[in-house]
Amino acid sequence: MDESTQERILRVAAEMFARKGYHATGVAELGAAAGLQRGALYYHIKSKEDLLFDLSKRHVEEALARGREVLAKDLPPAAKLRALAREHLRTIAARCAEVTVVIREMHSLTGIRAKRLKELRDEYENLFAAVLREGAAQGVFASADRVVVLGVLGMFNWTHVWLDAERGPLSPDDIADRLTDLIIHGQLAPATAVPAPAAARQ
Amino acid sequence: MDESTQERILRVAAEMFARKGYHATGVAELGAAAGLQRGALYYHIKSKEDLLFDLSKRHVEEALARGREVLAKDLPPAAKLRALAREHLRTIAARCAEVTVVIREMHSLTGIRAKRLKELRDEYENLFAAVLREGAAQGVFASADRVVVLGVLGMFNWTHVWLDAERGPLSPDDIADRLTDLIIHGQLAPATAVPAPAAARQ
Repeated sequence: MDESTQERILRVAAEMFARKGYHATGVAELGAAAGLQRGALYYHIKSKEDLLFDLSKRHVEEALARGREVLAKDLPPAAKLRALAREHLRTIAARCAEVTVVIREMHSLTGIRAKRLKELRDEYENLFAAVLREGAAQGVFASADRVVVLGVLGMFNWTHVWLDAERGPLSPDDIADRLTDLIIHGQLAPATAVPAPAAARQ
Repeated sequence: MDESTQERILRVAAEMFARKGYHATGVAELGAAAGLQRGALYYHIKSKEDLLFDLSKRHVEEALARGREVLAKDLPPAAKLRALAREHLRTIAARCAEVTVVIREMHSLTGIRAKRLKELRDEYENLFAAVLREGAAQGVFASADRVVVLGVLGMFNWTHVWLDAERGPLSPDDIADRLTDLIIHGQLAPATAVPAPAAARQ
């Protein structure tokens, strides 16, 4: 298979799906944007849904590979969480179209493709869960509760909505560091910090 | 105007846009699902985009009204943050289709409608910013930094992706409380808590 054509199709598809939406993008205009006749396009892809799946899968697999490298390092849990956050924000900054498409259009996948992408996303989520569990096991983190895992990952995932518009002079690493500090240390000012969450409950 | 027909159209539109996507939903099938002929439908709505705008606007305005009630209360900042979070999670639990549509399809709005919805969403974001600023001014919260505001709101916004599937026996209020505790107290186990975020930096 011609790798560079395949790559070009996936890049163009990510851009168009992000700009126009997956459902509103026609295969013919996709081919035109990639500089391919309909026949040539269908030589490379089986269907529009396959294209959505292929670009989503590739994107999540790459994020997974980088995340696994972080987990394999000999670092304390807080440092691993920070490193995972930095990789996550770097990916969002560098691959904005893919991230937008995966997050906004993943519900458009059906059957086995929906299932496989869900599995990959679960594996990615598990990286964060593993670091939080490691921290809890070492007595460093208070909890690796599922709601905490989903809350932490959600905070990072949602950055795709505002990172471009709102980061100002901050780098993706700066944003990752600030959000990691928020997760690790919370919002209480030092002077008023109390050890037990229940103490500040209403 | 016949309010109940209007209400029904908005409800059906939210459900169909959430299930099929805004672009993939035709006006004819929308009318059919709402039990209206094309002519009758166009008596009530000007265009599909108007429908998306109307349901998004109504939804954000309602969330804003409830949030403003919280802010007007005589409560300490941490309690206001918790109350805002509870309102937010209750809305997501009760109005899942609208929330999904606003979040997933707001980029499909154009011109003045896009601008107006952005303003409403900014006003909603400002509720969280105001509570964090109030806390920072009182010396209770460490920061009301823009990244912190966006991070906090992002954690709550992202719950729309997982709340239904993952909350198990927890109520929306339980989830709101756990996430509020995470934001306020952070993830450090009590014994290892240190006051200054910089201390744990790598």
